[in-house]
Amino acid sequence: MEISTGGIQVAVINKADASLYDIHPLDRIKIKYGKKNTIAVVNTTNDKNIPSGIIGLFEEPIKKLGLKDGEHINFEVAPKPKSLDYIKKKLDNKPLIYSELKQIINDIVNHRLSDVEMTYFVSACYCNPLSTKETVFLTKAMTEEGQILKVGKPPIVDKHCIGGIPGNRTTMLIVPILASAGLIIPKTSSRSITSPAGTADTVEVLAEVCIDLKKMKEIIRKTNGCMVWGGALNLSPADDNIIQVEKPMSLDSESQLLASIISKKLSVSSTHILIDIPYGPGAKVETYEKAKDVARAFESISKSLKVFIKTITTKACSPIGRGIGPALEARDVLWVLMNDNKQPYDLREKSLNLAGIMLEMGKKAKLGKGKEMAEEILSSGKAYNKFIEILKAQGLKIKDPNKIPLAKKTFTIKAEKNGKIIRIDNKLISKIARVAGTPQNPSSGIFLIKQCQEKVKKGDNLFTIYSDANDRMKYAKEIVKENIIYHIR
Amino acid sequence: MEISTGGIQVAVINKADASLYDIHPLDRIKIKYGKKNTIAVVNTTNDKNIPSGIIGLFEEPIKKLGLKDGEHINFEVAPKPKSLDYIKKKLDNKPLIYSELKQIINDIVNHRLSDVEMTYFVSACYCNPLSTKETVFLTKAMTEEGQILKVGKPPIVDKHCIGGIPGNRTTMLIVPILASAGLIIPKTSSRSITSPAGTADTVEVLAEVCIDLKKMKEIIRKTNGCMVWGGALNLSPADDNIIQVEKPMSLDSESQLLASIISKKLSVSSTHILIDIPYGPGAKVETYEKAKDVARAFESISKSLKVFIKTITTKACSPIGRGIGPALEARDVLWVLMNDNKQPYDLREKSLNLAGIMLEMGKKAKLGKGKEMAEEILSSGKAYNKFIEILKAQGLKIKDPNKIPLAKKTFTIKAEKNGKIIRIDNKLISKIARVAGTPQNPSSGIFLIKQCQEKVKKGDNLFTIYSDANDRMKYAKEIVKENIIYHIR
Repeated sequence: MEISTGGIQVAVINKADASLYDIHPLDRIKIKYGKKNTIAVVNTTNDKNIPSGIIGLFEEPIKKLGLKDGEHINFEVAPKPKSLDYIKKKLDNKPLIYSELKQIINDIVNHRLSDVEMTYFVSACYCNPLSTKETVFLTKAMTEEGQILKVGKPPIVDKHCIGGIPGNRTTMLIVPILASAGLIIPKTSSRSITSPAGTADTVEVLAEVCIDLKKMKEIIRKTNGCMVWGGALNLSPADDNIIQVEKPMSLDSESQLLASIISKKLSVSSTHILIDIPYGPGAKVETYEKAKDVARAFESISKSLKVFIKTITTKACSPIGRGIGPALEARDVLWVLMNDNKQPYDLREKSLNLAGIMLEMGKKAKLGKGKEMAEEILSSGKAYNKFIEILKAQGLKIKDPNKIPLAKKTFTIKAEKNGKIIRIDNKLISKIARVAGTPQNPSSGIFLIKQCQEKVKKGDNLFTIYSDANDRMKYAKEIVKENIIYHIR
Repeated sequence: MEISTGGIQVAVINKADASLYDIHPLDRIKIKYGKKNTIAVVNTTNDKNIPSGIIGLFEEPIKKLGLKDGEHINFEVAPKPKSLDYIKKKLDNKPLIYSELKQIINDIVNHRLSDVEMTYFVSACYCNPLSTKETVFLTKAMTEEGQILKVGKPPIVDKHCIGGIPGNRTTMLIVPILASAGLIIPKTSSRSITSPAGTADTVEVLAEVCIDLKKMKEIIRKTNGCMVWGGALNLSPADDNIIQVEKPMSLDSESQLLASIISKKLSVSSTHILIDIPYGPGAKVETYEKAKDVARAFESISKSLKVFIKTITTKACSPIGRGIGPALEARDVLWVLMNDNKQPYDLREKSLNLAGIMLEMGKKAKLGKGKEMAEEILSSGKAYNKFIEILKAQGLKIKDPNKIPLAKKTFTIKAEKNGKIIRIDNKLISKIARVAGTPQNPSSGIFLIKQCQEKVKKGDNLFTIYSDANDRMKYAKEIVKENIIYHIR
């Protein structure tokens, strides 16, 4: 039928046939072809292209069975997956044991649950939050149902940032600092979903990020670290399916968030994990109290999982760094690594803080001496050298910050009054950057000429929008006109 | 694209285009064509049949816009329906007000919510049960979003049975008794979903049941009553969509059940409603305690809705009547109405009890005198005459019980020991009848030669299976062999 769901197996049956065999929409049938078989969810149709006696199959079952058009198949009614009972149990607010959560995740990974059924699982976990014990079970199950990378002996360090702050490209500074100090850091990152850029998008400006598990292992063996796109690997694969059904409702249950993040770290065998929780208006976590709650939740599951998790909460009322968008962020990172005087000092400072903590976690620095060591590695150029070494292993594209292509059209916004910048609106900066073209066009975005806490005079340049499309630039300007981006007092 | 979802508008966009316009799967777009427009949910594809610049549309938007293949359309990103915020509110266990529930139901009826989004609503109502106040709001909203039938002045009587008991075809006896006594009873019934027959399936053996609202009104004006299929009308249309997503999980939240039943009664302007709640193993309500809970819930919403609701709970460990399946049940009903000595007395007795209560509710009989009056109407043949009058108005097919076609193959099961029948398994009787061919083949089913409480001797005939298909009969026999259907002690 040349239709694909992206995972779930679907079979389409004529309504008359469905009635004859007492099959209802969303029932399951086991389709047999030769020695192969698969289980598909039934849709019914009155479409004249699928008359009685003909079964229509989506691409997934066709691929799985190795079928061609017009072949004969047999089918029988299949039982419902066992995990539906466990999802019902959670809807009834009863705790799930490990084997039950494992079965649910197994059925999700193997595309045995429909979107509606997965939604019931997500709703159940949202309305009847998982206990710490259940969250640990879920994290383990999500890890075990995917690939697991084994590389070197502990400590294997890792970091994750609970997002929402534009810029903030600390990973690309921390990885080379730690790798240079001899720590193994198998870092996987995501692409942007709703932000102007994910770390994977920014690294991709300079090198390849679509790297398989085997290649990733080689790179880490050679350089101690990597900066690859997690989506190209099969780590914790249930997560993507779950996120897909969470999106329409923008749901974010704490236990799912924890399991999602930590399972991906366990998949690369990380033993020491730093969780950065920036909070502030526009961030994923908006208040200090909520940031502390999230921190406690991470710490509470760490013991049972036998990993060392440290959290850090920092206030962030503005973007971190000057560039917003893959190209402009990559340029910032290179400037910091090259100790160039155009570097954004807030990004440098934050990265050194995080790297310092991680050097202490990995026992490379004594307590209280981590930041000093990170500073030395960065200032000496060792971090830059390690960065280029890792990028070369991943397939280096550009290393000169002046050669990074930027969008051709620019528009600069000026201050309308004298004063001090007390806040730069994170959500509006993200929105304008996306309207300008990020992340699809990596060369577009925003460059912050003035940063938070700086004093400005009326008429001073505040920030520049980069775009390659006239209509995008026009719409970006409209947003600027209708909103206050820089709060000056 | 010749694909239909059965309601929701779907547009399919090439992944490259989706990325360019920053549109994600499950986002909504507003499609404009001339002066018409519609909002569709986006799926993305790599299908070569939908290259960049081409948009694929399912049948629903094509029909709504009046499009032909190859025409040009414009689209823009559309905002999410407001009801998603209200569904999120309920997921967060906050009470919903009338306008919010009304918006949710309005969006469901107008196919603005995807299956996943509706599932969140159903889950939220299941995990965070609606209060009595919210249930009343939901019931009103469900009623108002559909057609409303106005016919005559109060009292307008109605009845509903919370199902699960095979046979039990009381509606076809109660309607003619009450209509004959001068009460208006605009009865709509459902078809079977998981049972051997719904009342609509059984009536359909004798007359037409697919009747529109205008015709239904005419029939009631002429005869005081009707027995039509509710699914052919547009009464409380949100209900069918909600039931569709409840099915995979067999969810049955009490508030949804209440709103579903009562909204359909309010749609036909019923003012006095009797709810029959049989309980027992295999019934929808299994215990006396649960039956009492359900009864209380119905009574608690009745005041705010300004309808008079009475409930009756009766124990039912076995089918009611002798026939199971549309044809055999229709024959039972005719036998009772004709006072034939082959009539099942349990069905007669139960129907008289219910009709008696309703005659009292409708003020046609004094308190305690209803059953007597019902008995007189039935015994005198007045009920039979009214039944035939209503069936004629609906398009009579058969009125002679001996001319109802039954399936050709029969198999009779004999008692294996002496004793008294203490229980006949409702679930197994339903299963065997469905395997034999009901409700698709209305002539198939089961005839209970011996009923509950009767004494039997080894070798006595217990029940006969009717089927038209050899394989179905074979499978039915297997179920008989592997299970105890009649419990004899």
